[in-house]
Amino acid sequence: MPDILHRVGIKDTPKKVYKALSTIGGLRHWWVTETTGDPKQGGIINFGFCEMKVVNSKPHKFVKWKCVRGPKDWIDTEVSFQLKYKDHQTFVIFKHSHWKKPVEFMHHCSTKWAIFLLSLKDWLERSEGRPSPYDVKIHVDD
Amino acid sequence: MPDILHRVGIKDTPKKVYKALSTIGGLRHWWVTETTGDPKQGGIINFGFCEMKVVNSKPHKFVKWKCVRGPKDWIDTEVSFQLKYKDHQTFVIFKHSHWKKPVEFMHHCSTKWAIFLLSLKDWLERSEGRPSPYDVKIHVDD
Repeated sequence: MPDILHRVGIKDTPKKVYKALSTIGGLRHWWVTETTGDPKQGGIINFGFCEMKVVNSKPHKFVKWKCVRGPKDWIDTEVSFQLKYKDHQTFVIFKHSHWKKPVEFMHHCSTKWAIFLLSLKDWLERSEGRPSPYDVKIHVDD
Repeated sequence: MPDILHRVGIKDTPKKVYKALSTIGGLRHWWVTETTGDPKQGGIINFGFCEMKVVNSKPHKFVKWKCVRGPKDWIDTEVSFQLKYKDHQTFVIFKHSHWKKPVEFMHHCSTKWAIFLLSLKDWLERSEGRPSPYDVKIHVDD
């Protein structure tokens, strides 16, 4: 099965990056402004257009979600963020897995995830995240 | 085998997008400033850090390259751009395929390809491409 893969290096500690991935306040600054819910392991986070169950959350190391509501192609897919401190930065190794097919929407989501991971980086390094609905648009009517 | 997939929609014609993908002048404005070589089907384009053989080039529709020199993990991989006009824009459906394994470098390249496809979009829509070495950096020492 095809996966969406990305990696960015952020000039901040794994602790701060983990906080941005595992708190409602953090997620609102780089992914979706209207985020609500319970970001602890076992909880469900509501991002408006989708809901993610937190299936794994290891402080300062790893976060994994499973999509329980959202776009048809996302149902049961998993999104994970692995954190690795190296060369004075925290690398975020990202994977959105368990897509059934490499549909055109998957191509779109791959590009959007890059946009949001750069938003995460900009939020932590310069307090300039661009969460939805202020995200960089990648086509007409995006 | 895992692939890197992306999609952007560009407010311009397939003809103009194809030109940016199939001429040395075009490629210099969004991917690598120092591009040289022969961009016609069967030719080899030299991007400095890698060389691509143009295995397919269908005007205004499709371009496919095969890596003949470059980073170890890129050798024999293929990069393709499919163009599709829809909803007043040209969609570029991108694939970098034939990676042997989803190595960490593949995660990095996936994020960089998103950056360069947005550079292609910005070049065509606003004359503001950011080709290497002026590309958006995604980690310390990128």
